[in-house]
Amino acid sequence: MPAPAHIDLNSDVGEAFGSWTMGDDAAMFRSVSSASIACGFHAGDPSTMAETCREAVAAGVTIGAHVAYRDLAGFGRRFLDCSPRELADDVLYQMGALEAVARAAGGAVRYVKPHGALYTTIVHHEEHARAVVDAVRAFGGDLPLLLLPGSVALERARAAGLRAVAEAFADRAYRSDGTLVPRREPGAVLHDEHAVAERMVRLASRGTLLARDGTEIRIDAASICVHGDSPGAVAMAAAVRAALTAAGVEIRAFA
Amino acid sequence: MPAPAHIDLNSDVGEAFGSWTMGDDAAMFRSVSSASIACGFHAGDPSTMAETCREAVAAGVTIGAHVAYRDLAGFGRRFLDCSPRELADDVLYQMGALEAVARAAGGAVRYVKPHGALYTTIVHHEEHARAVVDAVRAFGGDLPLLLLPGSVALERARAAGLRAVAEAFADRAYRSDGTLVPRREPGAVLHDEHAVAERMVRLASRGTLLARDGTEIRIDAASICVHGDSPGAVAMAAAVRAALTAAGVEIRAFA
Amino acid sequence: MPAPAHIDLNSDVGEAFGSWTMGDDAAMFRSVSSASIACGFHAGDPSTMAETCREAVAAGVTIGAHVAYRDLAGFGRRFLDCSPRELADDVLYQMGALEAVARAAGGAVRYVKPHGALYTTIVHHEEHARAVVDAVRAFGGDLPLLLLPGSVALERARAAGLRAVAEAFADRAYRSDGTLVPRREPGAVLHDEHAVAERMVRLASRGTLLARDGTEIRIDAASICVHGDSPGAVAMAAAVRAALTAAGVEIRAFA
Amino acid sequence: MPAPAHIDLNSDVGEAFGSWTMGDDAAMFRSVSSASIACGFHAGDPSTMAETCREAVAAGVTIGAHVAYRDLAGFGRRFLDCSPRELADDVLYQMGALEAVARAAGGAVRYVKPHGALYTTIVHHEEHARAVVDAVRAFGGDLPLLLLPGSVALERARAAGLRAVAEAFADRAYRSDGTLVPRREPGAVLHDEHAVAERMVRLASRGTLLARDGTEIRIDAASICVHGDSPGAVAMAAAVRAALTAAGVEIRAFA
Repeated sequence: MPAPAHIDLNSDVGEAFGSWTMGDDAAMFRSVSSASIACGFHAGDPSTMAETCREAVAAGVTIGAHVAYRDLAGFGRRFLDCSPRELADDVLYQMGALEAVARAAGGAVRYVKPHGALYTTIVHHEEHARAVVDAVRAFGGDLPLLLLPGSVALERARAAGLRAVAEAFADRAYRSDGTLVPRREPGAVLHDEHAVAERMVRLASRGTLLARDGTEIRIDAASICVHGDSPGAVAMAAAVRAALTAAGVEIRAFA
Repeated sequence: MPAPAHIDLNSDVGEAFGSWTMGDDAAMFRSVSSASIACGFHAGDPSTMAETCREAVAAGVTIGAHVAYRDLAGFGRRFLDCSPRELADDVLYQMGALEAVARAAGGAVRYVKPHGALYTTIVHHEEHARAVVDAVRAFGGDLPLLLLPGSVALERARAAGLRAVAEAFADRAYRSDGTLVPRREPGAVLHDEHAVAERMVRLASRGTLLARDGTEIRIDAASICVHGDSPGAVAMAAAVRAALTAAGVEIRAFA
Repeated sequence: MPAPAHIDLNSDVGEAFGSWTMGDDAAMFRSVSSASIACGFHAGDPSTMAETCREAVAAGVTIGAHVAYRDLAGFGRRFLDCSPRELADDVLYQMGALEAVARAAGGAVRYVKPHGALYTTIVHHEEHARAVVDAVRAFGGDLPLLLLPGSVALERARAAGLRAVAEAFADRAYRSDGTLVPRREPGAVLHDEHAVAERMVRLASRGTLLARDGTEIRIDAASICVHGDSPGAVAMAAAVRAALTAAGVEIRAFA
Repeated sequence: MPAPAHIDLNSDVGEAFGSWTMGDDAAMFRSVSSASIACGFHAGDPSTMAETCREAVAAGVTIGAHVAYRDLAGFGRRFLDCSPRELADDVLYQMGALEAVARAAGGAVRYVKPHGALYTTIVHHEEHARAVVDAVRAFGGDLPLLLLPGSVALERARAAGLRAVAEAFADRAYRSDGTLVPRREPGAVLHDEHAVAERMVRLASRGTLLARDGTEIRIDAASICVHGDSPGAVAMAAAVRAALTAAGVEIRAFA
């Protein structure tokens, strides 16, 4: 008899800023085990961060630092060609700010996930990948990182002695080589919550996904990323959780 | 024989931002025992903060968080009518950011000093005074605060069980009631470094200053604030330190 | 036979910022004759400004500059104690930025309305009122201002030779002295769209409103401010427009 | 007898922000004919812009808009991968803001020069080059652009019917192919003000420079860029002006 399966469900939260809101964090806290909280550089003013941390603690959800390039106007979705030192210091600053806020809420930062353009840049950008790893090490406590499978940052983190965990995307189609179908291609984003839920059960129990061409591919993922920025996304997150639970898969924070 | 006198010398440092510089921090680190480091809201990008923390640690100078209203364009010198909750969260955020940066440099935040308009506002503004105190308590470790004598914040901090230390200003004239001569009045700012140094020796050894009218007044101050934003200011700080040392007064961080 | 009545309907629009949205501008453009467009200091990144100006021009709605204190994190709702010169320059900067964007969209800035804390501050703050007036005069073209009745800024603008127009708030109750019932008091905000629409017909046709105590009071208002930040508000704006039109009142931009 | 030679001298000015200063603009206004004024995105708060415009007008110096990526923390020196539409709107916004401020000072924006990373990016980045050109056209008045010789933006501007003027750098060495010696190579930056002044006289009178290897190369430049961010740079600018004037070359704004 195999050991009971478990997997992490993570989502981006705390992405309001001042008077602007984004997503339905309260709903997401009912589905996920890990919450990547914006730290003020792409979203997340300090009061939003504090409120989000309190909600995460109340819901028993693990807090992660969702660190980003300094780019409020672009929501951190634009590559910024900063120096490695600037980036490392910016990441460290964000981690520290969230840590203080999380501690005041009775929690703590337990992992780090780069956001937006930083997340995709360090898939291939050696210097920025290393800068993120340097910041996590400089912060102390050797927090794990949540990254894209195959990311250069993942290798650099592991080489530096950090735990680096890969994630899968619930609502994205995959190619047979294990990479994501680019968003510009038809069928890149999946909308059928039942089909998505079923895929995630397969992922959690067998470690595989069906690629767009029908091939069964092995995916190295200890966490599933679900979104919360639309009512449909919230419902999909809930459906994924329900299906996993029904299949006997435990939802458990990776960190 | 009286116990040997000692006093703290503090200065604002780390007030560069990106490509803009301010003051001569390296020179000040040779004179002061405590460095109030900007945390990004009125000055101090993360790389400046990191560099300043490394210099402070190398110089054996105690690090304080120089927290401010969110006002880069105004250098934190303009009152911002934020809510107490916003202010408390903003202060907590700044403390956490500096703490992470300071720890990576081998140091730690040992005290908190409000900057600019926040410093002067909480002399009388009950809600903002309490918000600052709330933030310091929420941060944990019950760090001491550096404040103006007579400040409402000083009372609120002490009532909350925190240590609150009053400071004197080396280059400012005092009225006989112990308050500062307003800057708009003639003679408010002192420029003669020998006279200033002599005043500070009196303060450190006897706890008094001569007011503008010649009265000897008692000043409750465990720290002396010196500035570093001009060559003259740097020379005055050095002169104060030299005179204190020559008079047998030990320069020692209050925190 | 009296001249046919007419009045302006104005609303705040363009209050998105980057990835964050606010309100339903498209819906509001079907109801209002004047659009106060955020200029980047409290909301409104340049692309949002451009898109909003294009929509305003397409809808035949008059463009106004919704100028604010520099306060993105507080949405311009917090008093900022800047110097009159800083304020005048900040307002001029915002007007110029919107003017360029409006012209590129085939429009032009036709009036100025201070936003949020700036709007309420210059009801009584002489120096800030004068700074806003100075900026409008420095911009050239002597654009009219949209202000609260009784505002000091209204007097200062008129004394400076500018046209200053007072506005009424569709969804607010009034006291018998013509001032607004403060928001903290019960009944301050009106929610019944039929009652509100009827009140606005009276205002447009007779120049009066019924105060909370039933008194009929004279209101000096050439414009009615309606909101668009909730579905209910959008519906109320549409109801006000429909009732005015049905009563033979023309909706016409004041500027 | 040849027509009397003339050339433009331009410099970056108005690069203070709030309490932070940069360079000695007053000194530069005595040397240059064109002033590229920061517009708030990399430097230049509105009051600095206003003061700088008044000084430019008083000195009879032509005002240009020094437009940049939105990057205060990086002084506009970091590439930001914004969309072409975002960039065009950001540039238009900056031009409009400076235009209003310049007009209030009795001047007007007469040309556009991209700053820092934007300047170097549009040497090769088709989409960003076109976005800048689009913004200048959208602004109206078909202002000329000041660019690097060989820049893709220069071609795009001319293709769009705009005047695009190339500039030479007074204190930089050139390779025999007419490109700059990269800063990382020895001898890239020239420090001898007499040698520099002599080179600029040759450029203005003969249209050539001596490359690093001694070759005489033809340089297409209607303007010379001089810097003002150090005492040495200010002295060099003055020396260039003096030498040009002594050689009978008129210093005249290109726009």
